[in-house]
Amino acid sequence: MELSLYTKAAEISEAHAKGKHVVVIDVLRASSTIVAASENGVDRIIPVATVEDAKRLLPTLDRKSTLLGGEREGNKIEGFDLGNSPIEYSPDTVAGKTVILSTSNGTVAIASSAPAKEIVIASFLNLTAAVAYLVSARPKGVVVLCAGNLGQLAIEDFVCGGLLVDRMDRATRARLTLNDGAVAARTLAVAMTDIGDVVRNSTHGRKLAGLGFAADLEFCACLDKCSAVPVAVDGRIAGREAGRR
Amino acid sequence: MELSLYTKAAEISEAHAKGKHVVVIDVLRASSTIVAASENGVDRIIPVATVEDAKRLLPTLDRKSTLLGGEREGNKIEGFDLGNSPIEYSPDTVAGKTVILSTSNGTVAIASSAPAKEIVIASFLNLTAAVAYLVSARPKGVVVLCAGNLGQLAIEDFVCGGLLVDRMDRATRARLTLNDGAVAARTLAVAMTDIGDVVRNSTHGRKLAGLGFAADLEFCACLDKCSAVPVAVDGRIAGREAGRR
Repeated sequence: MELSLYTKAAEISEAHAKGKHVVVIDVLRASSTIVAASENGVDRIIPVATVEDAKRLLPTLDRKSTLLGGEREGNKIEGFDLGNSPIEYSPDTVAGKTVILSTSNGTVAIASSAPAKEIVIASFLNLTAAVAYLVSARPKGVVVLCAGNLGQLAIEDFVCGGLLVDRMDRATRARLTLNDGAVAARTLAVAMTDIGDVVRNSTHGRKLAGLGFAADLEFCACLDKCSAVPVAVDGRIAGREAGRR
Repeated sequence: MELSLYTKAAEISEAHAKGKHVVVIDVLRASSTIVAASENGVDRIIPVATVEDAKRLLPTLDRKSTLLGGEREGNKIEGFDLGNSPIEYSPDTVAGKTVILSTSNGTVAIASSAPAKEIVIASFLNLTAAVAYLVSARPKGVVVLCAGNLGQLAIEDFVCGGLLVDRMDRATRARLTLNDGAVAARTLAVAMTDIGDVVRNSTHGRKLAGLGFAADLEFCACLDKCSAVPVAVDGRIAGREAGRR
C-alpha cells in the first residue's frame, strides 16, 4: 500500500486524494481542537474555509445547539463563541453541540482533501487511535497531509506525520511504499523524540506562546491523551462514535 | 542572520528572496550539472524555463561556442546537444562554451529566485565551497531553496540543504535564526549520513536509475568533489571564476 506524506495543503491535487484515506494533521491547533471536541462529545463539527461561510451557515442551524469557533492570526474571531484552543472545547461546552469551525490552516487542509474516500483528523493527542483506525480500514492508499503554517512547512505537523508513518509502517510490517516526504518525516520523528520541545520551539508554537496560548502547546504535545478519531464525511466531522467500527 | 529553507520553488515569493542570497539546490541533477560544468571551465550557463525559450535564444548567440542542454522526464531534449547528466559536461565538451540549460525543476527554481541579491548554485559536489562563499559574502539573509521534484519534496535536496544549514550554523557559531524547514532539514541531514543511500533510494534517484542514469547518482552523491561556486546574476550563471572573491 502506498503511503504518501505532503508538507502542505497546496501539494496535493484531486488525483492524490481521490479514493484514498487522507489524514489531516494540524497540531497547532485545528486537529488538536477537533480531536478534543470529539473526545468531549461534540455532536458534529462543520469545517468552513472563511468567516463569511461560517456566518452564512449559522442561521440555517439551531442557534442554541450551535457554536461558532475558530481563529485568525491565532486569536478568536470577533463575534465567535470559541477560539481555537482545544482546552476551550470542554465537555460542558461542546457535548451534544454542533461546532462551525474556521481556522487559518487546518480547515483549509480539510477542504482541499474533499475528494478523499475518508478524511481522518489526527494529532499527537490521538495518534495511536488514528493508526488503529487506519489499519482496520484497510485503505487503498493513505495520504498524510501536514497542514503547515501559512503555506510553509510546520515542524510540529511534520514530526507528528512522521510518527504516524512510523507507527503505520510497524503495524503493517513494513509493507508500505513511502514517498520522499514520508521517509523524511519518519526519520525526523525518530530523531526528535521530545514532542514538547518540538511543539514549543516551532515557529508557530513560539508565536502562540507570545499570544498567551502557552497552555495550548503543552496540551497539544500530549501523546495519546484521546481515543476519538474524528472522520469527515461530506464536509461534516462526526463526533467520537463515527470513528468506531 | 535569518536562514530559511523551503522545500520547493512554489513556497518562496518575491518578498522571501528580495535582497537575500538564495541557494538553489537540485541535486538530481541541475545543480550538480551546473557545478560540474563550472568546475570544468564553462564560460557561462543561461538557465531558461522552456524548450521554446532555449530555441529562441540560440540564434542570437554564436552557434559554434554555444551548447543546448537539458532534459524533460529525465531524458535529453530532442535536438539538444547535451542532456542533464553532470558527467556529460566534461572539460573537453564545455570549457569556454556557453550552455543554454532547461530542466524540469532546477532551472524553474532559479527563475523563481530572480529577485535575490545573488543566486548561488549548490549541491553535494560543492557543499564546503558554497558554505565558504556564503559566509564570506556576509549576506543580509540566506534562503535555501530545495528545488524538489515535480512540485513535491525531494529527500536528496532536503538532506543536502540540511547539511548546508548545519555547516553554515557551525561556521557562524550558531548565530543563525532558522525557520522550521531549516531545523527539520538539518536534523534529518545529521540523522541520514550516508549520502549515497539517500540519493539512490530517493524517488527521483530510483526513476533515474531506471532510465539508465545510475552513474549520475554516484557522481551527484560525491561530497566536495568540486570547488566551483556558480553564481547567477541577471539570469546568467558565470563560470567558476565568478564565485571567487
